[in-house]
Amino acid sequence: MAGARALGFKGCRKIGGSQIRNLLNAKDFFLFDCDGVIWHGEEAITGAPKVVSSLIKHGKNVFFVTNNCTRPRKNYVNKFYRLGFTDVMQEQIFSSSYCSALYLRDVAKVQGKVFVIGGEGVRNELLQAGIPFVGDEDAPDGTIFNCALASDVKAVLVGHDDKFTFLKLAKASCYLRDPECLFLATDVDPWHPLQDGRILPGSGCLTAALEVATGRKAMVIGKPSPFMFECISSQFRVDPAQCLMVGDRLETDMLFGANCGLDTMLTLTGISQMKTAQEYRDSDHSTNQSFVPDYVVDTIADFLPAFED
Amino acid sequence: MAGARALGFKGCRKIGGSQIRNLLNAKDFFLFDCDGVIWHGEEAITGAPKVVSSLIKHGKNVFFVTNNCTRPRKNYVNKFYRLGFTDVMQEQIFSSSYCSALYLRDVAKVQGKVFVIGGEGVRNELLQAGIPFVGDEDAPDGTIFNCALASDVKAVLVGHDDKFTFLKLAKASCYLRDPECLFLATDVDPWHPLQDGRILPGSGCLTAALEVATGRKAMVIGKPSPFMFECISSQFRVDPAQCLMVGDRLETDMLFGANCGLDTMLTLTGISQMKTAQEYRDSDHSTNQSFVPDYVVDTIADFLPAFED
Repeated sequence: MAGARALGFKGCRKIGGSQIRNLLNAKDFFLFDCDGVIWHGEEAITGAPKVVSSLIKHGKNVFFVTNNCTRPRKNYVNKFYRLGFTDVMQEQIFSSSYCSALYLRDVAKVQGKVFVIGGEGVRNELLQAGIPFVGDEDAPDGTIFNCALASDVKAVLVGHDDKFTFLKLAKASCYLRDPECLFLATDVDPWHPLQDGRILPGSGCLTAALEVATGRKAMVIGKPSPFMFECISSQFRVDPAQCLMVGDRLETDMLFGANCGLDTMLTLTGISQMKTAQEYRDSDHSTNQSFVPDYVVDTIADFLPAFED
Repeated sequence: MAGARALGFKGCRKIGGSQIRNLLNAKDFFLFDCDGVIWHGEEAITGAPKVVSSLIKHGKNVFFVTNNCTRPRKNYVNKFYRLGFTDVMQEQIFSSSYCSALYLRDVAKVQGKVFVIGGEGVRNELLQAGIPFVGDEDAPDGTIFNCALASDVKAVLVGHDDKFTFLKLAKASCYLRDPECLFLATDVDPWHPLQDGRILPGSGCLTAALEVATGRKAMVIGKPSPFMFECISSQFRVDPAQCLMVGDRLETDMLFGANCGLDTMLTLTGISQMKTAQEYRDSDHSTNQSFVPDYVVDTIADFLPAFED
């Protein structure tokens, strides 16, 4: 089956019933974003565990592609299990922290330490990859005027960091004055919704701060950059034409799919809504077309009837 | 004397001797940026105290227009005195924190509290202006999941804050979800040079982080916004055609002058260099012309011979 765009569809096609069945039959690889797609925080989207296990039982290849860099992959396996996804294995999980470590080790082949703005997810993946790092050893009264700077920092990696401080920003800015020092971001997600209308600033905020301080642009590992798809391709034999990327955020998930040449599906259980997708579709800016999903479903639980005989 | 641009000069005119004397005679109001222009940190630029006192003795009106929001104005008076500027009074000093407080009180007439990201300079000016504020009362283990949010925050003010934390960013992001809550930045300076090649991230970094988290743009009080000139005009009878703006940063000081209709002078004792100014002048982008100084001097000490008989 050719890609949805090649068939002349205009995008934002709300599908159900036999259309979903046909699409699931036609694809062999299913890439899912996590938050807003298969779960909300600590609660699985109703029906999502059954969708994932049914796809796997039907011989489909399922991958999880998440910009959330706060957990090591091994903790993700536990979370999947806890939320009822009992047949997900570590190999299926591609997080922005895991892929950042792969990039530093295998692509940039960094020789020296990495200065980390980030939490346990980032640190653990670097540890697993054998990459030395620094970044969380400041005294409470440390300042940029009196603190020590490591001599062999060859990269700065920015991810979500709820212990972010002015001093971390200042130290990273100093390291990045060396043009040879790599500037990497796990992702540039702007914010994440919390309970009670509160919001959690994302890695994109911290990256923006550092970009202003340094006058440099970060290389981004997470969606919408295609690098996480390259990580999957390097480990599995994947045909983009056989892939469906399912996500809830037009500006990251749908753009990621478009950047990788994948068909895309927006699920309405997360951040982006149909109206915005249609506005992108109907806008005159050709760049906006990359945000437009090929398909739209209310929830991935709409897949379930397709698995019934 | 008409403005330099009106006379058909192309900008970046390096002047000395009688040209400086003529310019000083022609102008009645002298606006100086501070850091990089009259001092470097805790050291006066050689000759600068004499330049300032000579201008004042010759009946000129001298103002200091600084984006540095870290000191209250009364502390600036002390610093001026300590560095040898013995005849500078508080009324001559227009800092971005003082002008932010004026904006909140007299223009926005804010009814409610201000959430402050910033240090003593910002807090003290708000106190002087009688504006209630919050922002620095977090427990060390506070998080955006468990912290209290004030109910009547009607504005967020971002300035330089070397105690900036992720939690401050997150709280500010929550307050700014209310579209009625004002979003103000003292300035958007990207960074400041320190000793030993280190750099100090500026307010612009923190503002950028918050802009990404909220999808909103801050209203900026400091240079290059013209608001600080409006503050001066509201207190003194100032004719823009009689003003000279002297600064060291093309993208803030020269643009500020251009935005306010003032003649501008770049002094080469600070951040921007002649080469960059000439590149702006010779570029095809018309917006870049606003960064081009009318005049250039090596240092404001070049003014001194003009005061000799």
